[in-house]
Amino acid sequence: MTYISVLGLGAMGQALAARLLQQGHSVTVWNRTAGKAASLVAKGARERSSAADAIASSDITVICVLDYAAANSVLDGAASVLAGRAIVNLTNGTPAQARATAERLAGLTASYLDGGIMATPPMIGGEHALILYSGSKPTFDAHVGTLEALGVATYLGADAGLASLHDLALLSGMYGLFAGFFHATALVNSEGIHAGEFLKLLGPWMTAMMGEFPGYAEKIDSGRHGVNVVSNLAMQAASLENILTATREQGVATNLLAPLLELFRKRDGAGHGDEDISGVFELIRRRSGAGI
Amino acid sequence: MTYISVLGLGAMGQALAARLLQQGHSVTVWNRTAGKAASLVAKGARERSSAADAIASSDITVICVLDYAAANSVLDGAASVLAGRAIVNLTNGTPAQARATAERLAGLTASYLDGGIMATPPMIGGEHALILYSGSKPTFDAHVGTLEALGVATYLGADAGLASLHDLALLSGMYGLFAGFFHATALVNSEGIHAGEFLKLLGPWMTAMMGEFPGYAEKIDSGRHGVNVVSNLAMQAASLENILTATREQGVATNLLAPLLELFRKRDGAGHGDEDISGVFELIRRRSGAGI
Repeated sequence: MTYISVLGLGAMGQALAARLLQQGHSVTVWNRTAGKAASLVAKGARERSSAADAIASSDITVICVLDYAAANSVLDGAASVLAGRAIVNLTNGTPAQARATAERLAGLTASYLDGGIMATPPMIGGEHALILYSGSKPTFDAHVGTLEALGVATYLGADAGLASLHDLALLSGMYGLFAGFFHATALVNSEGIHAGEFLKLLGPWMTAMMGEFPGYAEKIDSGRHGVNVVSNLAMQAASLENILTATREQGVATNLLAPLLELFRKRDGAGHGDEDISGVFELIRRRSGAGI
Repeated sequence: MTYISVLGLGAMGQALAARLLQQGHSVTVWNRTAGKAASLVAKGARERSSAADAIASSDITVICVLDYAAANSVLDGAASVLAGRAIVNLTNGTPAQARATAERLAGLTASYLDGGIMATPPMIGGEHALILYSGSKPTFDAHVGTLEALGVATYLGADAGLASLHDLALLSGMYGLFAGFFHATALVNSEGIHAGEFLKLLGPWMTAMMGEFPGYAEKIDSGRHGVNVVSNLAMQAASLENILTATREQGVATNLLAPLLELFRKRDGAGHGDEDISGVFELIRRRSGAGI
């Protein structure tokens, strides 16, 4: 049994606290505004009226609030009790924000683990919930047993920004997937075909196309986009051009895929038409300065 | 055994002809320029020096050339022999192009099946090759046994434009998937993380996120984007904004996902922030006039 506090009782904070209670831990909760703790208290949680009191009540404190501004304000208000405490911050933010908070807590001799929750509140505690962690390895190792109850716990490294970086990257992949889904569905729907009907084709197709990822990853990691090319970038630029022409003809907006065609053309124009489309990576990746 | 002709011997046409030969069919081939038929002739194909001769040699003719301009030019040159023939056109194009060719052939009393190949040449004949067909149902029914040897044969309807429409829609979904992969990989790579390493997280995550498709499809088909909302559009707009901010901070280009954020904002601004992100569909779909 772990003495653990949960600060922030939005939908996610409530799900985290409820799961910890269900696992038999001693859970203390706090929320900036009152009235969010009732159902958790009914399940055995103790409520505290200040974040500092909640942090001081437990061995480890999980923070899950709206944003880093809110998280930092909670930590500022509890600065006097932070020395020697273990803080796990699951608030959504950027790598830069995670690193700044890690530095601030290091100054107060608190140990800091930053996390990214790859799940919705109803998924917490289920086998499909993934939680990414980075920062203090000793803190992760000491509490991984407790944290595993919330979702599969994956430690990414000592740099506190890594969890957020991976979190945002996974979400960006998801948004590309969703953008493709919306475009594809709008295209067939322009002829009255239902999304549910089309999904029978689209689902297996998207799964099959994920089979291209390992090959692209290899080309990206080696920087050799010209090896083992089945359908080259120039051909695929023509194909995507054709798709966007048809999209316009069908009265559907081309917004979501237009930038990819632009990158295809730019890469083709730079003499890489006979290479693979993985070369697009070279146009968006971090360089010495900024991106494209 | 079917007497079948294949017109156009690029990589795809060669794969189609080779597979038909392997299945024991009597295959006649033709290509606009000479020198492409040698390996097929060695396997038993007969070569003809004109498209008209090739069409006249067989019960059914498969056309697989660069584009519809090329396909139409082949058909124009063979107009005198087309009456009563069955033509299967697997050339890449738009629904409008497929319909125009279907109309032209109807005028010549040829039967017409338009097709979209969802496979690369090496995949032809394998279990993962999918070929979509639309147009003449009698032609499809008469030859489905032969066509199945090339890839899973799916008939979509009498409108000759449907195969191309679905083909382009599936490809557009794939390009969204790839755009997400490139963005996500560039984001973690900005801190030196290898694409191959990151893929271990990204692959299962993308598969899990495809689990959202049926719910989105239901909302799209019913037009009710406000039911069963777990994470609403306003929250996801904030999340995507955060992702693009971090992307810029990491020196990575935001091009590929910027249009989705724009649509999120537009939909939020129109008062749909408490609904699901499936509402983006309403901004890109076909309306009475054009799209967005």
